[in-house]
This record gives sequence, C-alpha cells and structure tokens, in this order.
Amino acid sequence: MNTSFTAKLQQIQQKNNSLLCVGLDPNFEKLPEIFQKDLENGVVDFCCKIVDATADLVCAYKPQIAYFSAIGAETALEKIIAYIHQKYNGKIPVILDAKRGDIGSTAEQYAKEAFERYQADAVTVNPYMGTDSLESWFKYTNKGVFLLCRTSNVGGSDLQFLDIKNDNGEQQKIYQKVAELAASKWNPNEQTGLVVGATFPQELKIVRKIVGDEMPLLVPGIGAQGGDILQTVQSGQNSKNLGLILNSSRAILFADNTTNNFDKVARSVAEKTLQEIRLAQK
Amino acid sequence: MNTSFTAKLQQIQQKNNSLLCVGLDPNFEKLPEIFQKDLENGVVDFCCKIVDATADLVCAYKPQIAYFSAIGAETALEKIIAYIHQKYNGKIPVILDAKRGDIGSTAEQYAKEAFERYQADAVTVNPYMGTDSLESWFKYTNKGVFLLCRTSNVGGSDLQFLDIKNDNGEQQKIYQKVAELAASKWNPNEQTGLVVGATFPQELKIVRKIVGDEMPLLVPGIGAQGGDILQTVQSGQNSKNLGLILNSSRAILFADNTTNNFDKVARSVAEKTLQEIRLAQK
Repeated sequence: MNTSFTAKLQQIQQKNNSLLCVGLDPNFEKLPEIFQKDLENGVVDFCCKIVDATADLVCAYKPQIAYFSAIGAETALEKIIAYIHQKYNGKIPVILDAKRGDIGSTAEQYAKEAFERYQADAVTVNPYMGTDSLESWFKYTNKGVFLLCRTSNVGGSDLQFLDIKNDNGEQQKIYQKVAELAASKWNPNEQTGLVVGATFPQELKIVRKIVGDEMPLLVPGIGAQGGDILQTVQSGQNSKNLGLILNSSRAILFADNTTNNFDKVARSVAEKTLQEIRLAQK
Repeated sequence: MNTSFTAKLQQIQQKNNSLLCVGLDPNFEKLPEIFQKDLENGVVDFCCKIVDATADLVCAYKPQIAYFSAIGAETALEKIIAYIHQKYNGKIPVILDAKRGDIGSTAEQYAKEAFERYQADAVTVNPYMGTDSLESWFKYTNKGVFLLCRTSNVGGSDLQFLDIKNDNGEQQKIYQKVAELAASKWNPNEQTGLVVGATFPQELKIVRKIVGDEMPLLVPGIGAQGGDILQTVQSGQNSKNLGLILNSSRAILFADNTTNNFDKVARSVAEKTLQEIRLAQK
C-alpha cells in the first residue's frame, strides 16, 4: 500500500498513536440545543467543534453522508471536510461513508461526488454489483476504497453469511469471497480496504487471514453498537498491531448533548476509547 | 399490491398503455449546448422538457441521483420531481434511483432523503446489508422499494451469480435468494419490487417465476445497454402481460443533443421504444 490515502493514514496513525476514527453522524434532532437554531451552520459548527476536540486522538474522520442529505445539508458536509483539510494541513484523512454502488457510467458520477466535490480521501462502496461497478473508484488511484464485507448489523448475515464453494471446492461464505476478491482482482492499485463490523470479531479474524497484513480494515460497531474493543483489536490487527480503523460515532458525538460542554465530554469519551484501543494493541 | 405507489403505477400503465420508464440521467456534459450555460437551471429545464415531451408515453420517470449529486445539483432534482408531481397531478410515479443501503439508524436518514426531501414515490435499494437495513424503507408503506436483484452490468455476475443451496438443499444463485426473500420476508406491506437487468432475459424469467404475478420488476438495460425488448417483455411480464417497468435513459435523453429539436427527437425514440414494447406484450 503506497497510495496517498494509505500513506496519510499510516502517518497519522503513527503521529497520534491512534486507530480511532470518529464518525460524524450529526443527527440534527440530537444536537445540543444551541446548534438546532440554524440547520446548516448548526451542523457545521457542531461537527467542527467535535473535530477540534478530538483531532489529536484520531486517525480519521468518517462523515456519514445520509445525515447531511436527509436534511439538504450538502453544503455543510463540503464545509466540514474542507475545514478538516485546512485546519489540520491535510494530515487527517476523511472517509466519506456513502456505501455507493452502481454501473460504470453512474459509478463515475458517484466517484466524482465523493472525491472531487467533497474532496474525501476515501469512500465506502457496496460490492454487490461487482467488478465493473468498482472500476470508476479505482481510477482515483490516490484515494482509498473500502468495500462492504461483513457489516456490523444483524441482518448482514442474510446474504453475507450464505455458504458458497470456492474455486477449490471448499465451503466459504459470501463475505469471505468478497475478502478474497478485495485481496486480488478488486485491488489493482493497493488502495482497497474492507468494512468489517466490530460486532463480529470471529469474522474479523478470518478476514485478516484472507487479506494478509497490508489491507486496512474499517471497523464500525465499537461504541453505541456494542462491539468489544479488546476482541476487535486482537482479531483484526496485523502483525504490526496496526491495520485497523476503529469507528465510533454516536457514543462520542452525543456523549453529552445537554450542556455546552458537549465537546469536552466527547473528548473524554474519545480518550477513554483510545486508551482501551492502545491497551488492546498487544 | 395495494399501496399508493402500486396503485399509481397500475393506473398510469393502463392510462398510457405503457411499461416505459424514462431514466433522467442529465449528464451535464452531454446536454444540448443551450442548457450548459447555467448548471442548475440547465439541468432543470432540460429534464422538464424531456418530461413534457414524453409524459403521455411513460409509466414512470427514474432520476438517477448520482448525476445530480456529482455536480451539487440537489436543488435541481427537487425541482424536477416537484414539477412532475405538479404538472401531471401526481399521476406519474417517480422512482429515485439511489441504490442506498445501510444500517437501521442511517437507512432511516436515507429514507427521509428519498421520500420526504425528494418526494419520490419509490426508490432503488441495495440488499447486501440484509433485513434490518430494509426496515426503515418499509415503514413508508405507501412507497415502492425496488431491491437490486440481478443487475444489468457484466460484473453483476461476480456475487449475484454465486451458487448457494436453498432451504431444500437445491442449488440456487444469490440473485434467486434475493428474489425469494423479496417475495416473502422482505415484502411486509406488498410494496417491494426487484431490479433485474434487461441484459439477462433468462434470469428475468426465473425471477418472475419466483416472485409470482404481482411484483413489479424494474428493468434497466433496454436502449443504450442493448437489452432486447421482445425477449425482455416475454421473459418478465406477468400473466396479464404487465408487471414490468422498462427503463431507457441515455438512448432517449441524448437521442439528439446537437439541435434545439432534442425533445422532439427524444419523443420519437420514446414512441418507437414504446411501440416495440406494446408489440412484445403478447
């Protein structure tokens, strides 16, 4: 892995000694009251304050685009990403969680949205539509592309856990096939990562074994979704105790939404989470 | 099927004697020059003129959201959908092609985006994340939810064609499993449809057999993608020679982008396509 995204990720993971990613899911109704007066500015101010309170503790930010598009706040998302890039000199990667997936001509537009309009460093992509739906993303060789593999929700099992036979006639599950493809054909420029939920540490271990040491795994599900940090890190880390991006959103963002200290409380939860992660990296 | 979306769809299919859906993919660079002067107004004017030129020939419009979000033209999309609803008295359903898919709390935001912000009548959704990722969509019981099943692109085979065993130990493919789920657990309010590409008529036939007579199948791939209309209709129609929504985008939109007659030429291509469809419905 030597793309710009990967280089940036490795540098910040080292500098901040952190595998923690803070998910920016600014559910408008949950924002502290002072930010609810003005939709666009409220969302921007809230997220930027969370960023400033946690910037030395994280390896990435992951805005979830649905929270912006539901309320017509695309401009807020543009501003937040630009703020992160400017204030922190482009050193903290932004992963746009959009889970897009479409045929080539449309995927091209989605890639333009994520990488040109929003200036994201990486994006999450749904692989259900296969190889030619991924090619437009891979054309941005300095960007990261995280493919959904084993998602953190219960229903993820419905399709991802179906049994198939691999080329050697051995039984495997769909998510394992996705991991195999991501480690080969779906990684032409060493820019591919996978999304594997913290709620399934056993599967995280299997995915790490399939993809080898270099591939970053984006792991949602610690925090509000209840994934265990020790198990997650020990199952998913590579031989250097790295290779993970552990995302927490709600548990940090809304640790305290009733006071003007929300950012201090968010920071203290992020610190505690990071301490747990560091302890587990052994 | 007795939801508002389905009722609306059946009424317009009958009134216009049409299974044709025109896809609104306003690739800005391909618009006739007169519309390229002003991004937002250009996109709105172009799409509304296409709508006016074809409204008596279609059963639905399908805007593809990526073409709007890539250029920051969300407001244009809102305006176009509002125009269709207003000018045609809410009689022509709008299917927002967004292929969203995420965990519950995020899916809720995406559903809000599609159904509340954009006022779409139906949406396309990616089923890879399973049951609980679909529930937020099903809460809007009067809306249509089209799940990706067998997509029109070549790479669709990579995952959708993998062999699994069904509950009776028989071999089936992933897209068949999706169709089975869509015909049972994933259709709590008779509002579910499937996306099956016209480029694979054989699979369309299999899907129709699995889902029975009532479910609408949204079929992209006629027109620019080369799907054969006769084969598609004969493979996918139900016992009443209906049950299909056949989408053509580029072949109609950009039939002639060099002159001011683009809408007349678009209409004549739409008419010709509809004639072929009607001839095939037997």
